[in-house]
Amino acid sequence: MEQKLQELKERLLEISDLNSAAAVLGWDQSTYMPPGGAPYRARQMATLGRLAHEKNTSAEVGHLLDDLRSYEGSLPYDSDDASLIRVTRRNYDLLTKVPAPFMAQLMEHAGNTYMAWTQARPANDFASVMPMLEKTLDYSRQLAEYFPHDHIADPLIDQADYGMKAADVRAVFAELRAALVPIVQAITSQSPADESPLHHTFPAQQQLAFGLKIAEQFGYDLKRGRQDLTPHPFATKFSPGDVRITTRVKEDDLGDALFSTLHEAGHAMYEQGVNAAFDGTPLNGGTSAGVHESQSRLWENVVGRSRPFWEHYYGDLQATFPDQLGSVSLDTFYRAINKVQRSLIRTDADEVTYNLHVMIRFDLELDLLEGKLSIRDLPEAWQERYESDLGIAAPSDVDGVLQDVHWYGGIVGGVFQGYTLGNIMSLQFYDAALKAHPEIPAEVGQGKFSTLHGWMRDNIYQHGSKFTAPEILERATGSKLTIEPYIKYLKAKYGELYSL
Amino acid sequence: MEQKLQELKERLLEISDLNSAAAVLGWDQSTYMPPGGAPYRARQMATLGRLAHEKNTSAEVGHLLDDLRSYEGSLPYDSDDASLIRVTRRNYDLLTKVPAPFMAQLMEHAGNTYMAWTQARPANDFASVMPMLEKTLDYSRQLAEYFPHDHIADPLIDQADYGMKAADVRAVFAELRAALVPIVQAITSQSPADESPLHHTFPAQQQLAFGLKIAEQFGYDLKRGRQDLTPHPFATKFSPGDVRITTRVKEDDLGDALFSTLHEAGHAMYEQGVNAAFDGTPLNGGTSAGVHESQSRLWENVVGRSRPFWEHYYGDLQATFPDQLGSVSLDTFYRAINKVQRSLIRTDADEVTYNLHVMIRFDLELDLLEGKLSIRDLPEAWQERYESDLGIAAPSDVDGVLQDVHWYGGIVGGVFQGYTLGNIMSLQFYDAALKAHPEIPAEVGQGKFSTLHGWMRDNIYQHGSKFTAPEILERATGSKLTIEPYIKYLKAKYGELYSL
Repeated sequence: MEQKLQELKERLLEISDLNSAAAVLGWDQSTYMPPGGAPYRARQMATLGRLAHEKNTSAEVGHLLDDLRSYEGSLPYDSDDASLIRVTRRNYDLLTKVPAPFMAQLMEHAGNTYMAWTQARPANDFASVMPMLEKTLDYSRQLAEYFPHDHIADPLIDQADYGMKAADVRAVFAELRAALVPIVQAITSQSPADESPLHHTFPAQQQLAFGLKIAEQFGYDLKRGRQDLTPHPFATKFSPGDVRITTRVKEDDLGDALFSTLHEAGHAMYEQGVNAAFDGTPLNGGTSAGVHESQSRLWENVVGRSRPFWEHYYGDLQATFPDQLGSVSLDTFYRAINKVQRSLIRTDADEVTYNLHVMIRFDLELDLLEGKLSIRDLPEAWQERYESDLGIAAPSDVDGVLQDVHWYGGIVGGVFQGYTLGNIMSLQFYDAALKAHPEIPAEVGQGKFSTLHGWMRDNIYQHGSKFTAPEILERATGSKLTIEPYIKYLKAKYGELYSL
Repeated sequence: MEQKLQELKERLLEISDLNSAAAVLGWDQSTYMPPGGAPYRARQMATLGRLAHEKNTSAEVGHLLDDLRSYEGSLPYDSDDASLIRVTRRNYDLLTKVPAPFMAQLMEHAGNTYMAWTQARPANDFASVMPMLEKTLDYSRQLAEYFPHDHIADPLIDQADYGMKAADVRAVFAELRAALVPIVQAITSQSPADESPLHHTFPAQQQLAFGLKIAEQFGYDLKRGRQDLTPHPFATKFSPGDVRITTRVKEDDLGDALFSTLHEAGHAMYEQGVNAAFDGTPLNGGTSAGVHESQSRLWENVVGRSRPFWEHYYGDLQATFPDQLGSVSLDTFYRAINKVQRSLIRTDADEVTYNLHVMIRFDLELDLLEGKLSIRDLPEAWQERYESDLGIAAPSDVDGVLQDVHWYGGIVGGVFQGYTLGNIMSLQFYDAALKAHPEIPAEVGQGKFSTLHGWMRDNIYQHGSKFTAPEILERATGSKLTIEPYIKYLKAKYGELYSL
């Protein structure tokens, strides 16, 4: 059995190296590649992806997994070897239950739909992509049907947030919506915070240096990472020794680069914290979209937009930008970076309204998959939900149903819930850390993050993909998914800010 | 047959994509990778190399090449398809005639020897690597013995400069040495040129911008390329749309970044000029080390250190660095960048003495392979040749036999001749271009390079690896390897500079 396991690990290492190479090519594509490289780069990445897929779904891997079944059963569930076999088997099933020709068709359709969307969005022409999106919905249902499921969305949710069931997520999201809408109403009935202090001219290099310094103090290890510029910020992992982040910088918007840096640093610290022994295996990475987002949002918002944090750092920021912020009080600045407003664009939304954007999309996905809503009626349904949840209507589909790439990039279903699951879980994790270490807020107020970072590393990061999101939640916090800590946090923070 | 050829091309495309990915990983390793990534990156590159090697040497490729033999014979020698099959077969033979276990042993030994050299060089401890170098010589002979040959060095030379025979190269080098030694003596008996104008403080950004602007004016296409910083400059190709260069910059040495940029731009223009239809095949790259070096040296030296060139550009350079160069005359500057001196280090050597360094190494390689010289006696033989050829002796092996990595990186034999072949051929090609376009020197004097670049593209670059170095020479210049144009060039240029 030792030998079979060794053989499996050797195959997984090869796959991991191919995937890492593809990740480097993707990073380079977004950062430094000259324009002439584009068509060839796309093909090179597709070749690496195809080779990794062939090796991932090979009959040999299937046989090894069969041979290792009893060995897996003889090991403790949470042992590294049992987890490796279990997660490899799960991935193998996800990849092999779907016939390759179907997957190829779907991918081709996804590519065409994406291209059509890039035209349709600026032209405000939903009608032109409607037939393609109808086909995407068909494909998404067919994809789900290859897997046993309670709800048709479950197998799609599994692709990003394995083990999170549609019924549970829907119930939790309904609670969250019910709690959020009145908070948003109460806040937005008051006069809005003054954002203008964030919109002077802030030289790019100083913005970047300030953000990266804080990321480093959070615990992002620059000997095993670096930051570069891209139009859309992201974090990417090439190995336990190389986890990079990117950001963009706008000289007239201090918040953009700063909070995107803290956000991506959260993702990157998760990946840097994974047990290095998992290198070369499917355990070597964050376990789900939601748990990943819990970390980016924790460091960006719960820490990075908190009052104790800025009580410590605002003096530094003022010293960095004395002309722009010298006469702006901490209180004014703190209100500016926590401004709440009804808005149309998810990616620009504040901490309080953001989840309403996400849950609208999640609910619409379920309605579509269940057949309660047709693609034809989707734009109207979108507008209705924006009016009821956010009290605002988009003047056109550009800022409505054409806004996000997700559905036009391949699948309708399972592509949005992770954002809000992350917000909810960020406070479950933070609360659990506070229970173990009540000194954390005081430490944050002194620019010390090692206790918080250490708790996250020990309870979440190090496990990589050994445990599913529900398992991690249970192990780290002792409870299931619950909005209580998150709502308590929002009420406390925004209650104070807006004297609710 | 069409179908067999198509199948071969599909396999070659996959191999090409793996090699391109490895090249991107290598570039990243040298430019931006954080230190923590190093051990994982080495393994990732080794995995890609192993997969490419497996695919390159697969039985299927062998069968396809057998099946295509008669088809190849039915096509004109210089057709793209015949060339593709021919070059693929040549590579296949080079890779498959050597048993894999032997190659693995050799590579492991090479890795260990390289590591030992990194210790031995700073410690001036040749004795510690001597036994390993003796084994390397053994391995090199064994490697050569797997191939039919006239001279034991021929198969080793074939690895970098296919088709260049040891006997021919030795004869041409002997002529070159006989011609060079008196020129060096005549120049160095005069008082040396004043290099001090190059050693003020020149800010890095302005140096880089100036060098890259000239590279672009030569014809290096920045929509399909870019420049980054590395400790050792190089050029690398990821696709016809992405050929990059690197340089280093020393603020107290104006020549270093500038001429390395022009040198690497020469390599890069060669790669950018290869017929884009060869993408994904073994034809998609320069044909040999020597022809490649002919282009880097042509643009660096024959153009970039010429008087007409600086008659046009020196005003720009003075305007870029007015404090440093404002009072330095063109003549003084021109003499400084063409200073000739006896020196110990090959990579620092000037245009006239450089080949003496290379030929010493080449001759010693042949003596070692022929058994006329032992590794034990190599340091002494090195010193003797430096005294007889350059009239100078190294105070220690650090600047003597331990100087270059080449022998310690794997093979003794075939690793040096390309540098001097390149210098010789650069003038054969330049002369042929002048015969076709006598207006070239006048154009260079006006900062116009399109005629020269176009001739190189049409006669050399576009062919990629279709033709061997001797074939390219014959086709482009109508003659075999000859030192005549090179010696004529040196005598004219340095005769004028030093009133010989």
